[in-house]
Amino acid sequence: MAEEKDIGITAKKSENHSEWYTQVIQKADLIEYTSVSGCMVFRPWAYSIWENVKKFFDIELKKRGVKNAYFPLFIPETLLKKESQHVEGFSPEVAWVTHAGNTKLNEKLAVRPTSETIMYESYSKWVRSYRDLPLLINQWCNVVRWEFDNPVPFLRTREFLWQEGHTVHATQKSAEDEVYDILDLYKTVFEELYAVPVMKGRKSEKEKFAGALFTTSVETFLPFGKAIQGATSHCLGQNFSKAFDIKFLDENEKTQYGWQNSWGLSTRTIGIMIMMHGDDKGLVLPPNVAPLKAVIVPIFYKEKDKVLAEANRIKERLKDFDIELDDREEYTPGWKFNQWEMKGVPVRIEIGPKDIEKQQVVMVRRDTGEKSIVKYTEVKEKLAELLDYIQSNLFENAKKFIEENTVETKDWAEFIKAIKDKKMVYAPWCAETECEDWVKEKTGGAKTLNIPFNLPKKIDEKCPHCGKPAKVWCYFARSY
Amino acid sequence: MAEEKDIGITAKKSENHSEWYTQVIQKADLIEYTSVSGCMVFRPWAYSIWENVKKFFDIELKKRGVKNAYFPLFIPETLLKKESQHVEGFSPEVAWVTHAGNTKLNEKLAVRPTSETIMYESYSKWVRSYRDLPLLINQWCNVVRWEFDNPVPFLRTREFLWQEGHTVHATQKSAEDEVYDILDLYKTVFEELYAVPVMKGRKSEKEKFAGALFTTSVETFLPFGKAIQGATSHCLGQNFSKAFDIKFLDENEKTQYGWQNSWGLSTRTIGIMIMMHGDDKGLVLPPNVAPLKAVIVPIFYKEKDKVLAEANRIKERLKDFDIELDDREEYTPGWKFNQWEMKGVPVRIEIGPKDIEKQQVVMVRRDTGEKSIVKYTEVKEKLAELLDYIQSNLFENAKKFIEENTVETKDWAEFIKAIKDKKMVYAPWCAETECEDWVKEKTGGAKTLNIPFNLPKKIDEKCPHCGKPAKVWCYFARSY
Repeated sequence: MAEEKDIGITAKKSENHSEWYTQVIQKADLIEYTSVSGCMVFRPWAYSIWENVKKFFDIELKKRGVKNAYFPLFIPETLLKKESQHVEGFSPEVAWVTHAGNTKLNEKLAVRPTSETIMYESYSKWVRSYRDLPLLINQWCNVVRWEFDNPVPFLRTREFLWQEGHTVHATQKSAEDEVYDILDLYKTVFEELYAVPVMKGRKSEKEKFAGALFTTSVETFLPFGKAIQGATSHCLGQNFSKAFDIKFLDENEKTQYGWQNSWGLSTRTIGIMIMMHGDDKGLVLPPNVAPLKAVIVPIFYKEKDKVLAEANRIKERLKDFDIELDDREEYTPGWKFNQWEMKGVPVRIEIGPKDIEKQQVVMVRRDTGEKSIVKYTEVKEKLAELLDYIQSNLFENAKKFIEENTVETKDWAEFIKAIKDKKMVYAPWCAETECEDWVKEKTGGAKTLNIPFNLPKKIDEKCPHCGKPAKVWCYFARSY
Repeated sequence: MAEEKDIGITAKKSENHSEWYTQVIQKADLIEYTSVSGCMVFRPWAYSIWENVKKFFDIELKKRGVKNAYFPLFIPETLLKKESQHVEGFSPEVAWVTHAGNTKLNEKLAVRPTSETIMYESYSKWVRSYRDLPLLINQWCNVVRWEFDNPVPFLRTREFLWQEGHTVHATQKSAEDEVYDILDLYKTVFEELYAVPVMKGRKSEKEKFAGALFTTSVETFLPFGKAIQGATSHCLGQNFSKAFDIKFLDENEKTQYGWQNSWGLSTRTIGIMIMMHGDDKGLVLPPNVAPLKAVIVPIFYKEKDKVLAEANRIKERLKDFDIELDDREEYTPGWKFNQWEMKGVPVRIEIGPKDIEKQQVVMVRRDTGEKSIVKYTEVKEKLAELLDYIQSNLFENAKKFIEENTVETKDWAEFIKAIKDKKMVYAPWCAETECEDWVKEKTGGAKTLNIPFNLPKKIDEKCPHCGKPAKVWCYFARSY
């Protein structure tokens, strides 16, 4: 019989977060390392979370008339170079295919770091008239960005999975409306699926997407004192349509360049969720993304057949939920409790001979450890209720954490102290890149995250760094 | 107003099949060519067919306990080389990543042509005990095989999409049972979704997968006189488990090597369907994979608002089906008829002022052109019925075509004439590779397809090529 210590998480989240994270992702069967540096296996437990997110998001896209397609993995070098800012942003981290078999290729091929260039080559053939617009296409695929920094599974890996939406609109307004609509959808994915509160806003000029007119993002702040960008929705303006010749005849028979957007959400989101909700026992999964909502652990004593039969009856009552009955005989109930806690299953359902006598089960919440005695007749309602509680409790706890770790200040001494104390800062800012660079240097790495949309029209404050009149309020923090 | 001739297929399927195919895949909005030679865009119309197949297949896999995961795109050269037959089979067509940004990599990385090696590296860490088995994992992904022959969209492209299942079993029997079960599932995909009849069988030693113990396949024969392999299910035996050290302790605490399978179905299937069912008007889609089951084309005359209102009511009655109302005003009904026929939508529903008077619509079958007058109250039942008819009619026609083009013979003169006449041959065979090579040479390219499973125990015939006693009956044809 395996010993319990073999499988437990031995690092504390608050003490050694890096070791804690490394243990959780492996011991909860999320990730396997491979011999390709920076590329990991998404094991079924992790992939299934991604499938849940995909399912939700795909339905939402279809409601909006967005259609899925698939474009080539490879982008010829000349094509990648067509938009100058774009290639500058991406070429340092492009993986290049130079040979096929023993043959050297005439032109090297980029493994897509993102698909603007390969997609827009086709778009220029498809867009002719205002009647072809909006053109709304999405793809679910893998992308490669050869990071030279230390990889962090899910958050910074050389290959990851994502969706990338690429659209063309007849007017700037239509494009911009979509940018914000998709950003709202990303907020929904984070807040209602992953139970992770996010801040919506606009990226600074320095931090915007390479080639975009402007970039919007959702950002959050993690228990390790670092912020992270959750997803981005870019308005590309006419930069790419001019570079790729995406033109159309408008209703007045005039030639116009298309207004374009691109927007993406990746498997990075899984890492954010792990870091936000996980605890010293392992992963804590929000019910709305959990591959299993509950696991039934039978406690046999000497009445195995009887207990198993009852456990199966409970499972049948709960067939509308994704649940599993862990009837393995080679492990003790205690070992199973630990394992399923480590894997983050929202609710554990225990049933033993004494429970059967009373026609009841014990339900245990993963987030709080709270136990409930539940009559057979009420298991369905109670499980649904507990899952709701867990989902909102995780969200509320995360929200409280972020609020407690956000310092609003107009004072530079306070600003720098907050960053040193691993907090996030909300401060007025002149919106100049020079000042942004200076802050980064003086704080040991704090970057601008984003600028909220609903700022007061008139900002009276001064930028605490340079003293000039502030143009915006902005979030700042060290970040992943 | 666009002219009808602009959009129609101008080549005849029976006269110039290559030009016909090239027109259909482009004009039916399935494929776009790109500047990456051999790599094409799967446009939404094609991708949606693949989504329908994925959905069906994924549910079937989940019923069997197979879990989805995702493994890295890149495979280090040393890892790819671990199984000697395997690397021999694949290395001539591997795309190699040699640089990242401006940095030369220490070891070149293969873009996966298939994932045995990268997956089994992990499997060796996961399999310890018979209790870990069977290990049943699948992934949906892109793969790259750098074909130097002329690419044929869908059928032979340098990048394609597929699922690859990779499993480990404790016993040979468990592995073999799965090989045949999955092969049956592939047959179901072809016959019940794509309406394409297939022959199940075992590949010859020469044609088996590089590194497999044996390979099973489904094959079919296309209207252009060429056969094609539809999908393969391989029993890898212990070849890879020995190369990758995938071992487990059995119930008697003895160390055993795992028995492995791999099996795959790709976007090639879409091309097979197009070639099998398409006609001189374009694509013909079997209802079970069609993105749209029917399209409603309103015929306005001077009563636009009225007709549109009624058309919308019909659409509402048919909301359980994937259908579309084509209310574009800039095109004539005739233009729309042609376009939807070209795109292969199974049923067209026409409604005009005269139909409204009689509370009826006209339904037109794409496969036969047959028209039915249908009362409003019966549209739902009638559409369901027509879709069933179309699905089975396409299958029956294809079956008849294959039967009429298969020549069973024990005579070499007949054999060679049949191949010359672009038929498929079913003949006894000594099962020697030498004889297989000789046939290929003498017939100008006819290869063995597969050997059916249910052969008589005793075969009295002689091999018509070499005259030695035949060991099997086998299908032979020129093939893609």
